[in-house]
Amino acid sequence: MRLHGSHLVGRARDTSRIEALTDGVFAIVMTLMVFEIRLPREETVPLARALAGMWPEFFAYAVSFVQLGIYWVGHRSQYAFIVREDHVLRWSNLLFLALVSLIPFTTQLIAHHLASPLALGLYAANLILVGLVLAWHWRYATHGRRLVAADLAPAVVSTGLRRTVTAPLMYALALSLAVVSPVLTLGLFGLVPVFYLVPTLIDRVWFVRP
Amino acid sequence: MRLHGSHLVGRARDTSRIEALTDGVFAIVMTLMVFEIRLPREETVPLARALAGMWPEFFAYAVSFVQLGIYWVGHRSQYAFIVREDHVLRWSNLLFLALVSLIPFTTQLIAHHLASPLALGLYAANLILVGLVLAWHWRYATHGRRLVAADLAPAVVSTGLRRTVTAPLMYALALSLAVVSPVLTLGLFGLVPVFYLVPTLIDRVWFVRP
Amino acid sequence: MRLHGSHLVGRARDTSRIEALTDGVFAIVMTLMVFEIRLPREETVPLARALAGMWPEFFAYAVSFVQLGIYWVGHRSQYAFIVREDHVLRWSNLLFLALVSLIPFTTQLIAHHLASPLALGLYAANLILVGLVLAWHWRYATHGRRLVAADLAPAVVSTGLRRTVTAPLMYALALSLAVVSPVLTLGLFGLVPVFYLVPTLIDRVWFVRP
Amino acid sequence: MRLHGSHLVGRARDTSRIEALTDGVFAIVMTLMVFEIRLPREETVPLARALAGMWPEFFAYAVSFVQLGIYWVGHRSQYAFIVREDHVLRWSNLLFLALVSLIPFTTQLIAHHLASPLALGLYAANLILVGLVLAWHWRYATHGRRLVAADLAPAVVSTGLRRTVTAPLMYALALSLAVVSPVLTLGLFGLVPVFYLVPTLIDRVWFVRP
Repeated sequence: MRLHGSHLVGRARDTSRIEALTDGVFAIVMTLMVFEIRLPREETVPLARALAGMWPEFFAYAVSFVQLGIYWVGHRSQYAFIVREDHVLRWSNLLFLALVSLIPFTTQLIAHHLASPLALGLYAANLILVGLVLAWHWRYATHGRRLVAADLAPAVVSTGLRRTVTAPLMYALALSLAVVSPVLTLGLFGLVPVFYLVPTLIDRVWFVRP
Repeated sequence: MRLHGSHLVGRARDTSRIEALTDGVFAIVMTLMVFEIRLPREETVPLARALAGMWPEFFAYAVSFVQLGIYWVGHRSQYAFIVREDHVLRWSNLLFLALVSLIPFTTQLIAHHLASPLALGLYAANLILVGLVLAWHWRYATHGRRLVAADLAPAVVSTGLRRTVTAPLMYALALSLAVVSPVLTLGLFGLVPVFYLVPTLIDRVWFVRP
Repeated sequence: MRLHGSHLVGRARDTSRIEALTDGVFAIVMTLMVFEIRLPREETVPLARALAGMWPEFFAYAVSFVQLGIYWVGHRSQYAFIVREDHVLRWSNLLFLALVSLIPFTTQLIAHHLASPLALGLYAANLILVGLVLAWHWRYATHGRRLVAADLAPAVVSTGLRRTVTAPLMYALALSLAVVSPVLTLGLFGLVPVFYLVPTLIDRVWFVRP
Repeated sequence: MRLHGSHLVGRARDTSRIEALTDGVFAIVMTLMVFEIRLPREETVPLARALAGMWPEFFAYAVSFVQLGIYWVGHRSQYAFIVREDHVLRWSNLLFLALVSLIPFTTQLIAHHLASPLALGLYAANLILVGLVLAWHWRYATHGRRLVAADLAPAVVSTGLRRTVTAPLMYALALSLAVVSPVLTLGLFGLVPVFYLVPTLIDRVWFVRP
């Protein structure tokens, strides 16, 4: 007896709970990163100087918020097409969320150790893993039209995959450049969102006619 | 191939995920501001005196909660009419949320540095930016009836815009008065909610027949 | 032009956003109270003794969680019948949430100052205010069947009000007994949930035939 | 007059609020556990060594996240079949959430006191209680088909119960082995998820033909 087998219809395979949990985790992670930014309580430093000295924290927060935005939009876009769920989808989504919830920690790492290759590497590794799990998540759901509409256009499947893997591929490139210069790595981190904010830019990079 | 082009119907353009993420962020920001209010652990000060000495924190919390309420009601009112989403709407909403999630930080700033023009300025700037992004959000969605019903009454569009820009305009005025007196600025901050709590007061200020 | 006037149907007056925000705030408040409970980091005290010394914190957490449960169930029960929203309902709900979000703070107060009448008084006052706002919320929605079904049975309206005001009335009684003995007050706090957990007990207290 | 009696249909007995509150609590608990993991601020220790020294915290986080995943999937699976709610279901769900919200605290206990039998015992007891309440929750909802479809297959009821009690039974076994060796206990904690990740493995353990 399979509790969630294909003979079950309606609520048993509905994705709304997965989506609600995911929105909750993203809302918390996005919001709590700011709570990690704290003014020093010493009254000896003037406020303006104290705030200016905190630029790495604001920078790290901004970068991470945008990456979270990219992955949230990616997840939301996938679930515009995923219409059923199963055991594997649930757990791959939980793995995705576990990695997302680590982002505030690795963000703190680069905020406080901006010059450290180890911190940079762990931050990039975190973002790469989030992206790869999200890509696997899409691949699993769409392979053989497993959890999507049977007549979903192949172009939707391939576009979704391409858009999901672009971010982790760029982070991997950024990570490999850390041996040359951490500044190059940080620059690439800042470049990733551009590809997601400019419509169809990703498609053009992959030589696909948008 | 546009993944979320106009040929997609139903869930692909549904706004429920945007609304769920937004409600999550507001719930957390509203709630966590209180968690920043902490009693001093020194046992030397009597409790009543310790609490009384914390009035700037309670005041800042109350002011920020009401501002968050204004913007939440504004967002909720916009989505009573926004019936579709697109790439730009998602990202302008994420920008809105990024600025909202900074409010606890700037609230802390004024709670601990009530006399500082810099703290007041950053707090006002934060609230102004939130309001301007929300106004742009509405303008984008309604321009040419882009993401609203094709037959939406023009009065709804203009009323929505007017109500959204009133708050940031008043904060800008408050900010400009900080050079005269920080007390005037704080007084205006306290006045903004009155315009949102008294029905149709905003319309009368703009000389619109309610 | 009233943006949310009675000529609007459907989403414009739908209560789902109010309910989502409320569930979010309750989820956070319930969960974060535990995060305030922290083991002392000094290694000199054995773990068992350290935990035992924290009993006021666990007790305060348990009491507050149950009170939050009572108010969440009350809110949820009201929205089983509230089918429309308006400007006043939104803001009275935001006031309700503002007071709910203070509960972790006043819970900390009694956890760390269990013997202080001031702490007890502020905690009780907080719970009383939450209950009174929730009662007003119900009264507003049901008066003249304003935001409920036109044919809602009068017994539903009166039962809802009775069940909502029982908790704040008992807290007020508990508060008044603090001048006699703080132990009596704490005992009454522990008694309130009994009235909400035993079905129809509240009705019998009010001499209503269940 | 019973406010939520069987004569009420539709929203009055709808489970969506219970599910929303539960998703919110799980999202927060999953996410905030990471916020408890903090780098030591002393600059004397190299970053790599500091991170390596934190392995018990990462291990405890990973273990707890997976347990939370098991219970979230269990809750979600139950509500694929629970179609109505009543007073008892609400409060048993609130008890479930109260115990879930303690998990970050007991996780901290084992992270900082990995060698302590008391810490291990409290962690296991927490997980056992969460599982038993969830099992009771299912039993209550399905007994006499109280809150599920009248024609729900008996195999669904028994499979659901079996899958829910397997985790607390294994934790109880793990707990009893702590007197032999804490390593055995930790090993069993790590084994529990295997039974939930491998499809139908639980059924085979219970000698049920999957």
